Amino acid sequence: MTHAGRPSPAPLPGDLSLRHPVPSDHPRLQTALADWWGGLGGEAGALQRKLLVPRLFLQHFADTSFLVERPDGTLHAFLIGFLSRTDPATAYIHFVGVCPDGKRGGVGRALYERFFTLAHEAGRTRVRCITSPDNRASIAYHTRMGFHLEPGDHTDEHGTPVHTDYDGPGLDRVSFVREL
Amino acid sequence: MTHAGRPSPAPLPGDLSLRHPVPSDHPRLQTALADWWGGLGGEAGALQRKLLVPRLFLQHFADTSFLVERPDGTLHAFLIGFLSRTDPATAYIHFVGVCPDGKRGGVGRALYERFFTLAHEAGRTRVRCITSPDNRASIAYHTRMGFHLEPGDHTDEHGTPVHTDYDGPGLDRVSFVREL
Repeated sequence: MTHAGRPSPAPLPGDLSLRHPVPSDHPRLQTALADWWGGLGGEAGALQRKLLVPRLFLQHFADTSFLVERPDGTLHAFLIGFLSRTDPATAYIHFVGVCPDGKRGGVGRALYERFFTLAHEAGRTRVRCITSPDNRASIAYHTRMGFHLEPGDHTDEHGTPVHTDYDGPGLDRVSFVREL
Repeated sequence: MTHAGRPSPAPLPGDLSLRHPVPSDHPRLQTALADWWGGLGGEAGALQRKLLVPRLFLQHFADTSFLVERPDGTLHAFLIGFLSRTDPATAYIHFVGVCPDGKRGGVGRALYERFFTLAHEAGRTRVRCITSPDNRASIAYHTRMGFHLEPGDHTDEHGTPVHTDYDGPGLDRVSFVREL
């Protein structure tokens, strides 16, 4: 697909604004990672999410990541992504969050589409990401966003292919890929 | 410094061999992250280390990372690093481990020097990394390897500059930089 033939990303809803993150955004992201997932996984789940987004992503992969802020400067949503160095066809979305009040407002889709455009312009032909098998909302969301579930080593009770211990013992994951 | 003027990295000691990691190395790395730090930080410390090295580093930053294996194929040491995308002068070392029996054998230095050479050849002029303030061995090691400690927001009882809550609440860090 040529760049000229690619539709522009959806506009951000309402009066939200978009920018790349900076390292000093890290404390706000940490608070979001603790609070925005509705307690998924309890304390261990919150700790796991927080440790998965160390400051290095804001220092070294800022230009492939986005923050969305409200007019008062508070955090509304974020996307942490990067371009694979090992696989020149692939861009990777590491973590996406939308504040609870912002769900179903289209901001998640706007963020993904901006990342798809960025990845395409960087010559990437596919985007990959993962999620936890117990995050049913995330699995449904990625399917709606055009991602395909990759085969795992078994299928769970919902028919979802799961990679057992993907990120370590007890850290099962579902793997997605979307062609650009 | 010109490339021609740069000394070659130290050879690997003994009959050890070096290669880039692949995703299927992840379970061995997870075991090492749990076992090689002498119980530093207890169960929470082991969990923290394991969550800091998700599979994505072996999938997407493999060509800037290294594994060292013994003749029988068992894991002896590793270095996970990448080139900053946001800061084109910087390369970043995310995690380094040497098995307890391999300490003081020169393999750590050999890994760092290979990464320095790789970073230099990629046009980078400095290497950054971080560690925990309670990892006194790591702080001493990085100082011997030519890293400088960057100013923090306070100095601890050992005179070490510390960045409070650098990677989140309770996750203080010491920050190093080394010019190439």
